[in-house]
Amino acid sequence: MNKAALLAEINQKKSVLCVGLDTDIDKLPPHLPKNTEGALVFNKAIIEATSDYAVSYKINTAFYECLGVSGWTLLQETLNLIPKNCFSIADAKRGDIGNTSAMYAKAFYTQMSFDAITINPYMGQDSVKPFLTFDGKWAILLGLTSNEGSKDFQQLELQNGIFFEQVLKTSCQWGTEDNMMYVVGATKASVLKQIRQIIPNHFLLIPGVGAQGGSVDEVMQNGINKDVGLLINASRSVLYASSDKDFADKAAAEAQKLQKEMASYL
Amino acid sequence: MNKAALLAEINQKKSVLCVGLDTDIDKLPPHLPKNTEGALVFNKAIIEATSDYAVSYKINTAFYECLGVSGWTLLQETLNLIPKNCFSIADAKRGDIGNTSAMYAKAFYTQMSFDAITINPYMGQDSVKPFLTFDGKWAILLGLTSNEGSKDFQQLELQNGIFFEQVLKTSCQWGTEDNMMYVVGATKASVLKQIRQIIPNHFLLIPGVGAQGGSVDEVMQNGINKDVGLLINASRSVLYASSDKDFADKAAAEAQKLQKEMASYL
Repeated sequence: MNKAALLAEINQKKSVLCVGLDTDIDKLPPHLPKNTEGALVFNKAIIEATSDYAVSYKINTAFYECLGVSGWTLLQETLNLIPKNCFSIADAKRGDIGNTSAMYAKAFYTQMSFDAITINPYMGQDSVKPFLTFDGKWAILLGLTSNEGSKDFQQLELQNGIFFEQVLKTSCQWGTEDNMMYVVGATKASVLKQIRQIIPNHFLLIPGVGAQGGSVDEVMQNGINKDVGLLINASRSVLYASSDKDFADKAAAEAQKLQKEMASYL
Repeated sequence: MNKAALLAEINQKKSVLCVGLDTDIDKLPPHLPKNTEGALVFNKAIIEATSDYAVSYKINTAFYECLGVSGWTLLQETLNLIPKNCFSIADAKRGDIGNTSAMYAKAFYTQMSFDAITINPYMGQDSVKPFLTFDGKWAILLGLTSNEGSKDFQQLELQNGIFFEQVLKTSCQWGTEDNMMYVVGATKASVLKQIRQIIPNHFLLIPGVGAQGGSVDEVMQNGINKDVGLLINASRSVLYASSDKDFADKAAAEAQKLQKEMASYL
């Protein structure tokens, strides 16, 4: 999906909501079986209930890989349920030497047809480049993540600036605003303004709203750019808005609530 | 597998060879079908031909994921072919926020039964900790990688030292010498002595011998410690030693050549 199509979807729905399908079979409502069949029913209901409000879905591969071969099948089946007008993200945090990154790109862009993959930039340019050669596909690089551990390395001081800032400055030269985005945690909304000085035009994928404590208002105020330039992800707060039979209705209500908060800025 | 069992295997075979199963179906010998069935026959033959010389096997998950669901099946079947006395590594470069890393740990340690996973440390302590809570399992953190792109971020200068050195200094506090190893590229053998000053006792997984140009002698001379402390990986140079029907014999010869080079230091 190219940027124009993504922006059209955002403008039509007045939303930058991405729903994260971090589906944990142990957290399925009690009337569903705790297996991949139950998870597929759950994902289908969540997608149908939220697709009026969400412009994007993000599948967290870890929650599927832990189920083995049938989990990988569930991953593909879930991707197939995502409406084609929504931007699909494999939240896979991949990245390796060039010939290996090329295989990951093949896995997520070609063998499956995700629009985007999240990429860990630690191994540098030749580990990222293979993800940037597919028309209409996006590499979403980790910039500053939402977790406590982002302090350990991402926020170390260099001789001239902070490490994650250098990651942004260097890596934004590798691709364009039409094939690269960055992950910036919503829990780091206070630094969004300074990040926007380094990468004013790139889309940012912002996880950490909801269960992790980030605020939609703060993210919208500090992160929005002339093209909108934001996708804000909520996972657990939508998926598990109710732990009972009404989970889809409650997920829809939570997604709509987030969409309304977003709409006032769009 | 605990350290004592790994050392027993190393001492018995006089080898620190890890064979990397980066099996590319497009590079299978012409008499094998270019699909997962052909790859399984290939992997089985490679493992049987090299298991007198190798103490470890490393499965590069990218080469399996790019084949879809049947690739994930191939990954599990290949793991099942690795002799139980050999140390099995999922070269998966995973790492995410805590609840997600816990799912990756479940995928590779529990759902499958790998002895170790390679981990990207960029997201910090809470992204690594979930991999350190399984008895007899190992997290292998990226330290200094073998590729050109390691210059971009890993070798940046901090106010006090080099970035990858700080990654080693900080992260080695998170676990022990019995549940953590580090990846250091063979192409960086000249810095192994300085790395040994920071982490004298940890095992190092050294890729980059063979196709990437690293030298076994240099690695053994600079990297060995009182416990041996090394696993040296060769992938393409063993797998594709011949592109014809004699691929397994030629792989065995290449593995034996590497083992002999290693034996003189053990």
